[in-house]
Amino acid sequence: MVKVTVWNEYRHEKKDEVVRNTYPNGIHGTIANFLEKAGFHVKTATLDEPKHGLTEDVLKNTDVLIWWGHIAHEEVSDDVVNQVYERVLDGMGLIVLHSGHFSKIFKKLMGTSCDLKWREANEKERIWVVDPTHPIAEGIGEYFELDHEEMYGEHFDIPTPDELIFISWFEGGEVFRSGCTYKRGKGKIFYFRPGHETHPTYYHPQVQKVIVNAVKWAKAPETKKPTYGNYQPLEPIQID
Amino acid sequence: MVKVTVWNEYRHEKKDEVVRNTYPNGIHGTIANFLEKAGFHVKTATLDEPKHGLTEDVLKNTDVLIWWGHIAHEEVSDDVVNQVYERVLDGMGLIVLHSGHFSKIFKKLMGTSCDLKWREANEKERIWVVDPTHPIAEGIGEYFELDHEEMYGEHFDIPTPDELIFISWFEGGEVFRSGCTYKRGKGKIFYFRPGHETHPTYYHPQVQKVIVNAVKWAKAPETKKPTYGNYQPLEPIQID
Amino acid sequence: MVKVTVWNEYRHEKKDEVVRNTYPNGIHGTIANFLEKAGFHVKTATLDEPKHGLTEDVLKNTDVLIWWGHIAHEEVSDDVVNQVYERVLDGMGLIVLHSGHFSKIFKKLMGTSCDLKWREANEKERIWVVDPTHPIAEGIGEYFELDHEEMYGEHFDIPTPDELIFISWFEGGEVFRSGCTYKRGKGKIFYFRPGHETHPTYYHPQVQKVIVNAVKWAKAPETKKPTYGNYQPLEPIQID
Amino acid sequence: MVKVTVWNEYRHEKKDEVVRNTYPNGIHGTIANFLEKAGFHVKTATLDEPKHGLTEDVLKNTDVLIWWGHIAHEEVSDDVVNQVYERVLDGMGLIVLHSGHFSKIFKKLMGTSCDLKWREANEKERIWVVDPTHPIAEGIGEYFELDHEEMYGEHFDIPTPDELIFISWFEGGEVFRSGCTYKRGKGKIFYFRPGHETHPTYYHPQVQKVIVNAVKWAKAPETKKPTYGNYQPLEPIQID
Repeated sequence: MVKVTVWNEYRHEKKDEVVRNTYPNGIHGTIANFLEKAGFHVKTATLDEPKHGLTEDVLKNTDVLIWWGHIAHEEVSDDVVNQVYERVLDGMGLIVLHSGHFSKIFKKLMGTSCDLKWREANEKERIWVVDPTHPIAEGIGEYFELDHEEMYGEHFDIPTPDELIFISWFEGGEVFRSGCTYKRGKGKIFYFRPGHETHPTYYHPQVQKVIVNAVKWAKAPETKKPTYGNYQPLEPIQID
Repeated sequence: MVKVTVWNEYRHEKKDEVVRNTYPNGIHGTIANFLEKAGFHVKTATLDEPKHGLTEDVLKNTDVLIWWGHIAHEEVSDDVVNQVYERVLDGMGLIVLHSGHFSKIFKKLMGTSCDLKWREANEKERIWVVDPTHPIAEGIGEYFELDHEEMYGEHFDIPTPDELIFISWFEGGEVFRSGCTYKRGKGKIFYFRPGHETHPTYYHPQVQKVIVNAVKWAKAPETKKPTYGNYQPLEPIQID
Repeated sequence: MVKVTVWNEYRHEKKDEVVRNTYPNGIHGTIANFLEKAGFHVKTATLDEPKHGLTEDVLKNTDVLIWWGHIAHEEVSDDVVNQVYERVLDGMGLIVLHSGHFSKIFKKLMGTSCDLKWREANEKERIWVVDPTHPIAEGIGEYFELDHEEMYGEHFDIPTPDELIFISWFEGGEVFRSGCTYKRGKGKIFYFRPGHETHPTYYHPQVQKVIVNAVKWAKAPETKKPTYGNYQPLEPIQID
Repeated sequence: MVKVTVWNEYRHEKKDEVVRNTYPNGIHGTIANFLEKAGFHVKTATLDEPKHGLTEDVLKNTDVLIWWGHIAHEEVSDDVVNQVYERVLDGMGLIVLHSGHFSKIFKKLMGTSCDLKWREANEKERIWVVDPTHPIAEGIGEYFELDHEEMYGEHFDIPTPDELIFISWFEGGEVFRSGCTYKRGKGKIFYFRPGHETHPTYYHPQVQKVIVNAVKWAKAPETKKPTYGNYQPLEPIQID
């Protein structure tokens, strides 16, 4: 059974009535709920818990970590970021949602600014599947629509994705690479664009389906950590 | 005329007679020499200079930075690393050589541990071209040999390269992805494996040819920095 | 000096007054014209010439071939397609424009159906740069607009591009991977979406700039053809 | 339950005693045997059966097709190749083994010559894992060895793999990209190098493990075929 930890900054919900009404149990609560129904073993963690809820023990027992953050990226301690980073390299899957593009952990794993264009105009987003063979696109159809979302536009300053699964069309005229996979060390990473806090995006059945698919995909295969460092020869070396 | 800065840690040459005899003007001196002959405008910089020789002015006037480091990665200041990082994202090319795989700047740009296997056994390395269309492989032939080199072996913990140009065969039984390209922001990055300090690798004509080719390749096209941040719509958005 | 051959089906221009008025010297004439001004050595070839104008001699003297076809893909002889194919593998660059996605040569090089959605509705297309480091995007800016174009929509059934440079936004709600690079053998291939015959797309300065950039990019480096077939060992093999 | 069809040319086994002694039930028999033990539903098909054993009905009921061929590639009918090709684009997985690199179906899907260096010298091959996150590498360890194999060497004239999982080291001095994935249409393709007919390679536990892993990986997700062709707008288009 895949063990998922859903991490949420959990600040908007406390401060902003619109967000609280949309996500009364927090964005993490909503995501945890549909992941449990999908049969995963799910826990949650939030910024204001000790160690942001991401103790060594929690991380060790997490196959796939989901990350939602927005206004408090800087409050995430570098220590926790480093521990999450090490766990990703060691095989923990990571799904970064929406404004998590600017989280410390995502920037550290990408090696770029992760900057982009944005606009809050309640506009329509249509997410097209460009890789219909990918397990993350299973059962999604050709596209799906979100009636009201924040816009994210190119150029998105990320490394070339290993795989590009979704491209968004926005009513206001922009496009965006909305579903991107990466590998770092033994860990698998998926960035998924949708999910502004003022919109009920995480109740959308196809958004949920994508995240469920991504959890299955992101769980690493059972592989021993490679040997690094000084290494004895496997074949004789001629001395001359 | 492409402006190149060759950065070298320049410690082995001061401490170790074998290295000093091999590179009497430092590894940077040897590299700068063949790059000048190739028609580039070349400067050098070393660790023990103020700001490691990489002032804002030097970086601004560098199209392509070459990086060789080994035993003193930790002595490179985080400030300088951050400035180099920003310049790469802004379009400066970066060529990381050999043990530079463990430099702060390379690890920061890759988002991985950059770890690998290694062995100092004076063994033979044969470097095969697997992408003969690539401008960095121009004029190299099918393979070239280094009679004595340090071994680097897989698994090499890097992100999947955007392009894989060279694979090394080692006498002792290992293989290695020896020529890898990446893009980060507007900058182009090339990692090239050979060049242990105790071997005359940077005098080898094909090693020199690869580095000359890489400098030409790594110079960024003239492109305006993309706009990031809040962005006005290009099309009317329906209000409902 | 780069030698370019611009190949055009050249049928629409003969049959259809709108197209003829737009491209009085044929689409190939317009493209050849701006390529000559950019300093290339340019020839043209069309379907109804003997061997479609693509004799062995013409192909041997072509560094980069540009391909525009639409309604007569099936009339291109398999012999000529095979000769173009061999020349691409041997290092000739190939730039496939717009409806050339369904040409025999493109499908043969891709190994897929190259199918897509399309619509002729004179709608607006906005082409976004997603890889600002790429030489084909040099001087293009963040995006450019074509006021009236045919729509091409995803899913575009191509192999994952080696590099994705442009993504189109369409007024009618679709997106498209509009600028894609591939390598096949020693040859470099660029697919570029715009250019429906009833629109003056090839007079657009940024469309011209992209094609000029692509010609420079597609010219292969000077590399010897690799050795294939039975091969003697480079190292002693132990007999047991 | 994944439905696998193992296709074998099945000629060496009939003509050559060494091969027959190694694979008394044919290479397909040995492969089918360990795939059945792994829990797949397995059938076999061979060249000399009507339609090479690959009727429309067989193909329709195949999730993953395994292909081994060598001396009789030209005897495979173009009709059957086209049907296999269409099934791959429609989602059937394809695992191409060893000398299948020169099969009509692999060349058609790759769009390149698929040529390489080779040598029959009973030499040692060591296969290194360069992508330890990949499900095809699950449980393989860092490398495995084949004491006697045919050598295949670079340059291997294939498109850049979507993913590169294995690199081979050969005793005689060459390297080879031995495990490569591709997507074509909705189908997933894996090329795996080992398996010369005179060696007991397909009895090797790690070779078997790789092929079992590859079958699981190559089964396509359940996805509707995308819509292609003329397409109605999803948004209003302004007429001007």
